[in-house]
Amino acid sequence: MREVAIIGVGAHATGQFTEKALKDLAYTAIWNTLDDAGAEPSDINVAYVGNSLGGLLTGQEGVRGQVVLQHSGITGIPVINVENACASAATALRGAWLEVASGAADVALAVGVEKMFVGDSARTISALSAVSEVDLSEMGMQFTTSYAIHPKINLKGKMAEYGWTSADFAKPAVKNSFNGSLNPLAQHRRPLSIEQVVQSRIVVDPLTLFMCASISDGAAAAIVCPVEMAPRFTSKLPVRIASCVLRSGMYRLPDDGFTDSATVSAQAAYEEAGIGPDDLNAIELHDAMAPAELMLYERLGLCAPGEGPRLIDEGITTLSGRIPVNPSGGLCSRGHPVGATGLLQIAELVWQMRGEAGARQIEKRPKVTMAQNQGGLLLGQDSAVYGVTILKT
Amino acid sequence: MREVAIIGVGAHATGQFTEKALKDLAYTAIWNTLDDAGAEPSDINVAYVGNSLGGLLTGQEGVRGQVVLQHSGITGIPVINVENACASAATALRGAWLEVASGAADVALAVGVEKMFVGDSARTISALSAVSEVDLSEMGMQFTTSYAIHPKINLKGKMAEYGWTSADFAKPAVKNSFNGSLNPLAQHRRPLSIEQVVQSRIVVDPLTLFMCASISDGAAAAIVCPVEMAPRFTSKLPVRIASCVLRSGMYRLPDDGFTDSATVSAQAAYEEAGIGPDDLNAIELHDAMAPAELMLYERLGLCAPGEGPRLIDEGITTLSGRIPVNPSGGLCSRGHPVGATGLLQIAELVWQMRGEAGARQIEKRPKVTMAQNQGGLLLGQDSAVYGVTILKT
Repeated sequence: MREVAIIGVGAHATGQFTEKALKDLAYTAIWNTLDDAGAEPSDINVAYVGNSLGGLLTGQEGVRGQVVLQHSGITGIPVINVENACASAATALRGAWLEVASGAADVALAVGVEKMFVGDSARTISALSAVSEVDLSEMGMQFTTSYAIHPKINLKGKMAEYGWTSADFAKPAVKNSFNGSLNPLAQHRRPLSIEQVVQSRIVVDPLTLFMCASISDGAAAAIVCPVEMAPRFTSKLPVRIASCVLRSGMYRLPDDGFTDSATVSAQAAYEEAGIGPDDLNAIELHDAMAPAELMLYERLGLCAPGEGPRLIDEGITTLSGRIPVNPSGGLCSRGHPVGATGLLQIAELVWQMRGEAGARQIEKRPKVTMAQNQGGLLLGQDSAVYGVTILKT
Repeated sequence: MREVAIIGVGAHATGQFTEKALKDLAYTAIWNTLDDAGAEPSDINVAYVGNSLGGLLTGQEGVRGQVVLQHSGITGIPVINVENACASAATALRGAWLEVASGAADVALAVGVEKMFVGDSARTISALSAVSEVDLSEMGMQFTTSYAIHPKINLKGKMAEYGWTSADFAKPAVKNSFNGSLNPLAQHRRPLSIEQVVQSRIVVDPLTLFMCASISDGAAAAIVCPVEMAPRFTSKLPVRIASCVLRSGMYRLPDDGFTDSATVSAQAAYEEAGIGPDDLNAIELHDAMAPAELMLYERLGLCAPGEGPRLIDEGITTLSGRIPVNPSGGLCSRGHPVGATGLLQIAELVWQMRGEAGARQIEKRPKVTMAQNQGGLLLGQDSAVYGVTILKT
């Protein structure tokens, strides 16, 4: 396998863009990425396009990628439309990486795009919960509800077990709202206090409104090529993909038992990159609900079980801390346009690693970073998807 | 890149299966494939799942592959859900091939599944035409209409240019209905005469009912691994993938003009496999409408422009001919469950190459074959997808 570098990233702002269709959102992200990489549409050998809800929300069920790429002037190449719920963009990046790593292509484009504001938010929420083929007791449940009461997530259980409080759940939202306030592309740019988060409307106990990612339109993209080819396109610092791991469902243990893939996928990514959690200088992770960030600290090996709130209290994961987490503002502040999120994470990390992150730039430019993108949890661990990417300069 | 072999194939019958969901159709195909390959669910390292219309027709928009694989006992691996209209299954196979060829995985599963009978055929037809993001004069047109009057296909123009008649258009349907009558998995098993095809109801002039693929439920799958690993699983003849090409949209010519990718994708597949059209012993191609088979003869290099009907008249492409085309019955007789079709083609070719095709077995067992799967034409050549796979024993 060849070593692969990200030579360009780009994004459309996240938020509500009533007049824009999928192809308009993608256009901005794709052209910003081409400009950033110093590449032309004709340089692209293959494209992976991630989108999750276009069929149900926009009616564009078939060949979504061809439609958005054609609008951006890219045609005549293999286009692979991928879907993996909220991890669709990580899946697109992994596809682009594999094409280049294997030598099947020299220059690959990964795009993630989602159009969620369609004038009927009930329809958007219902699309997020579309699980016609699964016979679960949770069937028909709204997405956030599932997060709150899902037995495998079990927020109330964590409160009992670890002594976590509603204020603890608010801490990631507060930290990330500050980061998001410094990000001109973020959907929500108001710094929040613990009180504001805790006292916002209860969505489903114990989750309040400001602990939840809201619906969002957005798009992001990245261009990858072999490391040694990067200087042909750009003099910018190439960011190497040290590992790009994708896992779904329950992982089979050697004793024939099963465990979930959140921890397993992170471990696999560390192993492939030859590093451990202590080597990371920054992380973008999937805080679709604020408490998820606390639980992911454990699963990514950043702390022992139950110690998540301490990492924020001690400033370890804040923008000025040892391992800043979600410098972009994360899903709750930067925004969570489902099929775009994984590439918004990648774009943020590349900007941080190059020192291009403006007001939210991490002071000591990160050299080793991780993007953790997940999805499908509504259907239980069997359908969960985890995409973990480690980047190095 | 490693040389990749198909070690197992399997299918669900095509037709109307009112009581079966996506996961039930896929279950049969996946387990028949595992059995055929001598593999267990735990042998599978990665899976690509192709489906085109599940979001609009069944409501299962997200993580379709995880849902169908979990039902078949496969979990804890990377699952990549792919979509490429009627070429979704060829896209799934190419993904599985790339995983194994690159060394990213040893054993990969490709699945294609479609559920089109949902109790409302108007909804199914409308899903096939879902093009919300494209502003074409054809927008909103029904799929078959598009095929008949699309300027790039231009059936009436071919009749004027080549002197083709309605009886010529009927010839592939007649040939393929005979093949399908011998296929126990086929949707339509009645051998038709030229008169029956020509005199069947006009769908849109010049296409009649029996010249068109009907809606269909179905599923197919294949398992691939490195050629040298095949004997670990099965003593059956391994079928090597000599090339696996995917292209979308208009191909950029050296002089900066553009041409369509149908011919280009076939040429690329021949080149990669180191063969030419004369080396092929059997073909499964994408005859969604019978006249498409005549036009594809030209594009695949089997004959000069306008000579398609002669290939059938002279028996060259019949089951007992020099290059049998669509021995399965093709899309019009075997059936066209959109996201499954490309892997139904692959399954048929593998059975033929192994001598397992029963009453429709090609007498001289084919050693070099091609599957040609296409889609997205409704949106014009910019969104068309071509998947061409060449197999060798």
